[in-house]
Amino acid sequence: MSPAPPSCRAKVLAFDVFGTVVDWHSGIARSVQALRPAVDGDRFALAWRAGYQPAMRRVQSGELGWTLIDDLHRLILDGLLDQFGLTDLTEDEKQHLNKAWHRLDPWPDVVAGLTRLKARHTICTLSNGNLGLLTNMAKRAGLPWDCILSAEVFRAYKPDPATYLGVVRVFDVAPAEVMLVAAHQDDLAAARACGLQTAYIERPAEFGSAHPKDISPNPANTWHATDFLALADQLDA
Amino acid sequence: MSPAPPSCRAKVLAFDVFGTVVDWHSGIARSVQALRPAVDGDRFALAWRAGYQPAMRRVQSGELGWTLIDDLHRLILDGLLDQFGLTDLTEDEKQHLNKAWHRLDPWPDVVAGLTRLKARHTICTLSNGNLGLLTNMAKRAGLPWDCILSAEVFRAYKPDPATYLGVVRVFDVAPAEVMLVAAHQDDLAAARACGLQTAYIERPAEFGSAHPKDISPNPANTWHATDFLALADQLDA
Repeated sequence: MSPAPPSCRAKVLAFDVFGTVVDWHSGIARSVQALRPAVDGDRFALAWRAGYQPAMRRVQSGELGWTLIDDLHRLILDGLLDQFGLTDLTEDEKQHLNKAWHRLDPWPDVVAGLTRLKARHTICTLSNGNLGLLTNMAKRAGLPWDCILSAEVFRAYKPDPATYLGVVRVFDVAPAEVMLVAAHQDDLAAARACGLQTAYIERPAEFGSAHPKDISPNPANTWHATDFLALADQLDA
Repeated sequence: MSPAPPSCRAKVLAFDVFGTVVDWHSGIARSVQALRPAVDGDRFALAWRAGYQPAMRRVQSGELGWTLIDDLHRLILDGLLDQFGLTDLTEDEKQHLNKAWHRLDPWPDVVAGLTRLKARHTICTLSNGNLGLLTNMAKRAGLPWDCILSAEVFRAYKPDPATYLGVVRVFDVAPAEVMLVAAHQDDLAAARACGLQTAYIERPAEFGSAHPKDISPNPANTWHATDFLALADQLDA
């Protein structure tokens, strides 16, 4: 389905990462249960992720100085230890658990899809995750990025326009030559407001199979695809 | 030859790019001659490159605001047009020539060497070149970086310590776990002053075969190798 014809060919595809490229819910649930099998992994993953937006807002409002996501993840984790009976974790275990976000697995279509899309486009991340996290993740999972871009480069988190327009500036192209690929309508809306093309990717199990997500199309997006292979079919047919 | 035993295993290898990874001299000479065959390509390449350090110093001193290397290259190019009889270039030709720095070829050992080094280390660029330039270069030449880091990320040019320590911070490791790989002793000396390991790579033809470069070892470096394959032999023997 392609509700709006693209205004021009997208030279650069910029990918949201958590939820769009990798399955954070099952990865985080598995990581906490590997340390403490009694913990409800589903609830724990949802609670940790739920702290993400509020933590970034504390940075955006100026309450916290510029902070890497690794450090925000740790801040949120420390606030959950009591509630989930994890206060006996050693410091090494906490650090290991915090880096579970570096060890997330991609959705099954991702490596093959990115490899196809890379043949005709420059593919990069555009994530609020920090550069080290995204690099470790890519190396472990074999994600073939041409370039890793992050909020860390632009010193602003999505949905700040500085991030979307940062990609435009890095590659010295027109906004419409960049496409944001994401499983989140709010991220895509912010990119669209900056003049980027947008592709919505269905990830119905992002929050776990027990909590199916609304994946209905928004006609404002340039493309809507079930996964990266379907997106490659649409873009490069 | 390994004059000093490494203090620990280098997790991250950060590579200088112009001269170390790619052959700028022959690439630039070829690009200008493709546009105007009468130009002395050797002299032109040397003159363009000679403007690089002074231009960066104008930024570091505050005379110019933060400027990407693409824009510094253009500034220098505009200053050479007269001298090399290139004032008749069209604006499109000038832009194309300026992007010759994106289209430089790697030395013959580079792709195979990086591929070997990538198996046991995180490999990234640490170049004063901008992110777009380095990404376009990598995509064209098949350079398998795990991550592209640049002065653009740290808003400082090498040899500013903020660049070397920026790599340390990005990957959340100790300085001695990062190794700068470069064909330039001054770059390596600055990295060493920040606590990084260093590997010198011989690139005797960096300035063209007519102008052989001093490639004598400096015992202060952790490693000294003829090329990336030899470095892989030494590091991962």
